[in-house]
Amino acid sequence: MPIQTNELHALFDPESIAIIGASADAKRIGGRPLKYLQQNRFKGRIYPVNPKYGEINGLKCYADITQIPDEIDLAIISLPGQAVLESVKQCAQKGVRSIIVFSSGFGEVDDEGKRQQEEIAGIARAHGIRLLGPNCLGLFNTNNGVFATFSTILESQTPYRSKISFVSQSGAFGSYVYTLARQHQIGFSHFVATGNESDIDAADCIAYFAQDENTDVIACYVEGVKNGEKFLQALRMAAENRKPVVVLKVGRTDEGRQAAMSHTGSLAGADEVYDEVFRQYGAYRANTVEEFIDVVYGCSKLPLPKGERVAVFTVSGGIGIMLADALTENGLRLPQPPEDVQQRLKDLLPYAGVNNPIDTTAQLNVQPELLGQFMEAVLDGGIYDAAIAFLGFTGLYSHTLQARLPSLEQIARRYGNIPLITITLHDENSKKQFEDRGLFLVENPTQAVRILKALHFFNRFYADMPDHRAMAQPKIVAVPSGASVLTEFESKKWLAQYGIPVTREKLATTAEEAVAHAREIGFPVVLKGMSPQILHKSDLGLVQLRIQNELETVAKFEEIRRRIEQTEGAQFDGVLVQEMLAGDAVEMFIGAKRDPVFGQMVVTGIGGIFIEVFNDAVMRKAPITVEEAVKMLRELRGFKILQGARGKPPCDIEALGTVIARFSEMLAGAGSAVREIDMNPIMVFANGQGVKVADALITLNN
Amino acid sequence: MPIQTNELHALFDPESIAIIGASADAKRIGGRPLKYLQQNRFKGRIYPVNPKYGEINGLKCYADITQIPDEIDLAIISLPGQAVLESVKQCAQKGVRSIIVFSSGFGEVDDEGKRQQEEIAGIARAHGIRLLGPNCLGLFNTNNGVFATFSTILESQTPYRSKISFVSQSGAFGSYVYTLARQHQIGFSHFVATGNESDIDAADCIAYFAQDENTDVIACYVEGVKNGEKFLQALRMAAENRKPVVVLKVGRTDEGRQAAMSHTGSLAGADEVYDEVFRQYGAYRANTVEEFIDVVYGCSKLPLPKGERVAVFTVSGGIGIMLADALTENGLRLPQPPEDVQQRLKDLLPYAGVNNPIDTTAQLNVQPELLGQFMEAVLDGGIYDAAIAFLGFTGLYSHTLQARLPSLEQIARRYGNIPLITITLHDENSKKQFEDRGLFLVENPTQAVRILKALHFFNRFYADMPDHRAMAQPKIVAVPSGASVLTEFESKKWLAQYGIPVTREKLATTAEEAVAHAREIGFPVVLKGMSPQILHKSDLGLVQLRIQNELETVAKFEEIRRRIEQTEGAQFDGVLVQEMLAGDAVEMFIGAKRDPVFGQMVVTGIGGIFIEVFNDAVMRKAPITVEEAVKMLRELRGFKILQGARGKPPCDIEALGTVIARFSEMLAGAGSAVREIDMNPIMVFANGQGVKVADALITLNN
Repeated sequence: MPIQTNELHALFDPESIAIIGASADAKRIGGRPLKYLQQNRFKGRIYPVNPKYGEINGLKCYADITQIPDEIDLAIISLPGQAVLESVKQCAQKGVRSIIVFSSGFGEVDDEGKRQQEEIAGIARAHGIRLLGPNCLGLFNTNNGVFATFSTILESQTPYRSKISFVSQSGAFGSYVYTLARQHQIGFSHFVATGNESDIDAADCIAYFAQDENTDVIACYVEGVKNGEKFLQALRMAAENRKPVVVLKVGRTDEGRQAAMSHTGSLAGADEVYDEVFRQYGAYRANTVEEFIDVVYGCSKLPLPKGERVAVFTVSGGIGIMLADALTENGLRLPQPPEDVQQRLKDLLPYAGVNNPIDTTAQLNVQPELLGQFMEAVLDGGIYDAAIAFLGFTGLYSHTLQARLPSLEQIARRYGNIPLITITLHDENSKKQFEDRGLFLVENPTQAVRILKALHFFNRFYADMPDHRAMAQPKIVAVPSGASVLTEFESKKWLAQYGIPVTREKLATTAEEAVAHAREIGFPVVLKGMSPQILHKSDLGLVQLRIQNELETVAKFEEIRRRIEQTEGAQFDGVLVQEMLAGDAVEMFIGAKRDPVFGQMVVTGIGGIFIEVFNDAVMRKAPITVEEAVKMLRELRGFKILQGARGKPPCDIEALGTVIARFSEMLAGAGSAVREIDMNPIMVFANGQGVKVADALITLNN
Repeated sequence: MPIQTNELHALFDPESIAIIGASADAKRIGGRPLKYLQQNRFKGRIYPVNPKYGEINGLKCYADITQIPDEIDLAIISLPGQAVLESVKQCAQKGVRSIIVFSSGFGEVDDEGKRQQEEIAGIARAHGIRLLGPNCLGLFNTNNGVFATFSTILESQTPYRSKISFVSQSGAFGSYVYTLARQHQIGFSHFVATGNESDIDAADCIAYFAQDENTDVIACYVEGVKNGEKFLQALRMAAENRKPVVVLKVGRTDEGRQAAMSHTGSLAGADEVYDEVFRQYGAYRANTVEEFIDVVYGCSKLPLPKGERVAVFTVSGGIGIMLADALTENGLRLPQPPEDVQQRLKDLLPYAGVNNPIDTTAQLNVQPELLGQFMEAVLDGGIYDAAIAFLGFTGLYSHTLQARLPSLEQIARRYGNIPLITITLHDENSKKQFEDRGLFLVENPTQAVRILKALHFFNRFYADMPDHRAMAQPKIVAVPSGASVLTEFESKKWLAQYGIPVTREKLATTAEEAVAHAREIGFPVVLKGMSPQILHKSDLGLVQLRIQNELETVAKFEEIRRRIEQTEGAQFDGVLVQEMLAGDAVEMFIGAKRDPVFGQMVVTGIGGIFIEVFNDAVMRKAPITVEEAVKMLRELRGFKILQGARGKPPCDIEALGTVIARFSEMLAGAGSAVREIDMNPIMVFANGQGVKVADALITLNN
């Protein structure tokens, strides 16, 4: 079901706001939004609701919301928890369009609170009202003066405006980030804390911001997503509108997840799955508060680089080296300027460092014009996608600052299509001077690098983003009914239907049949005992390799049958007669891992020691295309082995990628019907010779 | 040769300073140190030297240094490059104790400059004068007002004082770091930029600071070390005096090293070797300017934690989770408080988060006393080694700040033996209030984590640091003379002398001898053709495995001899008859890698695919102890294989560690005589069954 973003207009851009539990005391929770709205000159209508007062701050106060002689877009409920239910009912009666519930004492406390929360959300839903909260700090929208929050962060200052919209699953975290950003003169378009998410969740807000004209970048703090598909749909909407989404999700480690469990009560989904789906759906994951703020800010001010080539200008050789280290470690490159450009630089300053990073040296203090001359000489060739200028502590001294700004401004204007980041120590005043000239400024090299890294991520993602037609689609899948465990034979038959190549094999229920099958397939063959009750065949000696002739076939058949019949509770389904594959293939595994939040993930890796010792596996949310599957294989640390390490020929990577993609489409179609699929090993032959699944096991949720 | 730190007293703590090229104009290079010295009330005597003036700033000015009627501890030379040589000669004649040369135009420019630089350094050396520079920014010592620098960073402000001493191989980088730190109200004890290091280098400064009573922490910016042994000796001195050394070294990547090459002209030594020796000698490597400053600052103010158990107190669940993530990812732990303590917390605040991270929630705003109560309840049991308190944006608001400070101060006093880090947004004024109370304050969670990580590193290093007697010592080694390439047979004979177990083997020069040896060793045997000219025996078919009997021995012997004799330029040394080892051992390699800066490193890893595909190797500077060797093995990603992965028995790790240690002692003793040693494979058998070197190749610098 597509997300209905238009329903959130009444919440984020209301023309009328009722504050239920309003107070004249700006220190009280019910007093703050009223004060903030008035002080920030909200242009719509404000209706305080409180039976105790006739008037608050010059506004008529109503005893209850039903008495307001106007339509209400947004009702803010600031009442004790036990009064909320009745208040929501009145809102429903009044026909308000949206509600924010500040009050706590619901799902975050106990089961009874959770029940009440569901009741409230149910009433809202039944009346077509969208509800934010309960237990939430509210929101603000700096574009229209909507300050529907009781956060103390607005007490002493008005937010700066920008094109950044920020949705936070934690009010305290959001307030901290907001305040830290403000200390660096960074503003916001919207801020919303989603509290208990009984109705409106982070995905709703992302989707709303994705189509909001005052939003260029979406910042999102996540503790846990309940509805994975909806969240990804919201990310997709943002990506389609080219609005970078920057996510900070906590709970990376077991310890963090344990802390999250005690904090939020419940939190499902493996962190590595979040990590993967964020990347797959084009959200950039920041790991620290500083990275979060830097990247969001950078995305809001800078164009995306069209490639990874960075020109670095520096007054310190040391910082130049450091930038070269950090940029290349983060996937960016520092190509050298052409010979003639280097010569031009040498002509300007004989002892300049004319390799990239380009070192003007401290001579810049004596010849300030060198900055513009150097940058122009280097950038004019159009071979750089981004530029960084490190200027030491220039920004702290008015005279050097004035000597640099005109050059930088001219360069930024001339090469406006590439991001230009200036690094210099600065104060509030110098930052303003940079910003007034449209120049982008940070304090240290790390910030510049992490911003360029993120911009580069978004550029690549948008460039590679398939349109809807080219995207992988789930297959319509007929899931076998009945048994919950499929034998190898049944598993492979099912997989083969979806174009996944498996070993040539036939099931024999008698020794004679086994011999006939073996003859047809050709010796040597493999015999495997089939029983739905026995998952680990090898442990019981049910796998017999390299059967060379008919006599041996008969003997081993009988041995296998006997072993199954002697196993308590095991049903004998027959013996699988299978071609014996050449031993020089690379053994991979492909599997399905169902995440409780994001659904079926396809996992692959090289078998044996690589997964056991190095934990070398990669995953994607199913379905994926062949291109994506090959990209996935390239991410394996052991990818060299598929390329033909140790003198072996390169493997058929294309065929392997095709199988992974087909499998992923089937998996996505089967959805929650599949509990587990494990194809292990799948033999990958030399280039052009394909792949074959040698063993497979499927368990279903039947 | 031990570093003579007392020679640097005259430089860092002079009683008399001559400024050669002094000027009254504080904008000029020769004017700045004079201005800084006077303005910062240097208590010693200042002698301007300049033939153009009779007096400068109220001080008598001398025409040349020899005319000064006083002993000179420090002469600062601020003259054009071409005048420096003559000036140094005069200083030598005068008998000054130390010199700083600001002037550039030496080794950093061309070969002629390098030659002049060496001449100057030679004169100084001959006269027992220590010289800093040339091409250097100078130094300052805030403890005694010695401001012997022309850096503009002191123009508008006096440095804060602290116990941090900072040596930088780059003036521009150092100035930037200094200024950034100062913006965060962080001061320094000493600052010194070493310029071209013609005499005094970074190691000298580290060693000096190691014994300086005004230094608690040593910060060091490195582009490249010329004398590795000396540098490590200085690190060792600092470690013995328990003074943390924090190093920022650039040139981590090939691109960075390339940039460093063009910047400094030359830079040898692999970065991974720096990385390893820093760790091995107890220097903490910071990778960014922020980390560098944070860690240095933390080390200067906080006690070391005695272990890795951290108690986290937070007003935001989200930040708590984030801290739990980051702390555990960095080797720290968050154990839970005991049941009874959790109960006490619940009694104080029923809906508090009583698991670690401990969440006081926003209720702290209403009940400020909760902070002290919670921290005391949790820390009283003595089960935590460090504490972090996250207080949101408290530090920005005077009323909340005043409500928190007394609690924090009381806690810090009560648990003064563990580091306590408060995280809150703050301004200059609130920072001062924290510092005045001896409280340690940072702005964001990342800072707290990186500081604790570093403190934990130093604590573990000091705890594990062997005293001189327990340290591994180089063996006295007799290096074979003559040939530069030793055959396998010669290589193993040499290794065996130092207690390294090798395969049983004998050299045969005739087929009869080969048969006799094989009979003695026992069939099956291995035959290997020996020729110093043939390094890759297998490629030429000179290795014959599984020789079962005498007949085969004779045939293969002749075949091998023929092949060597048919190889142009190859001399036949005989055929090595060797025991055939059981095939189920784990194959490791142990090798020597000689670093141009730090000397012989011992390298080890699991052979085959692990090193080829995963590049899974570890190294240490030789010599190392058995304990260190085992620690080294544990760092291998593939260590599980030695522990007995895939159903195999655990390997004889102790025996392997012993061999690595013995090898490292021999290697350290051989020093530069050894070009390369490669023991590959060394077979590691099951626990108790030892190891054996199956093949080895040594090349010498003969």
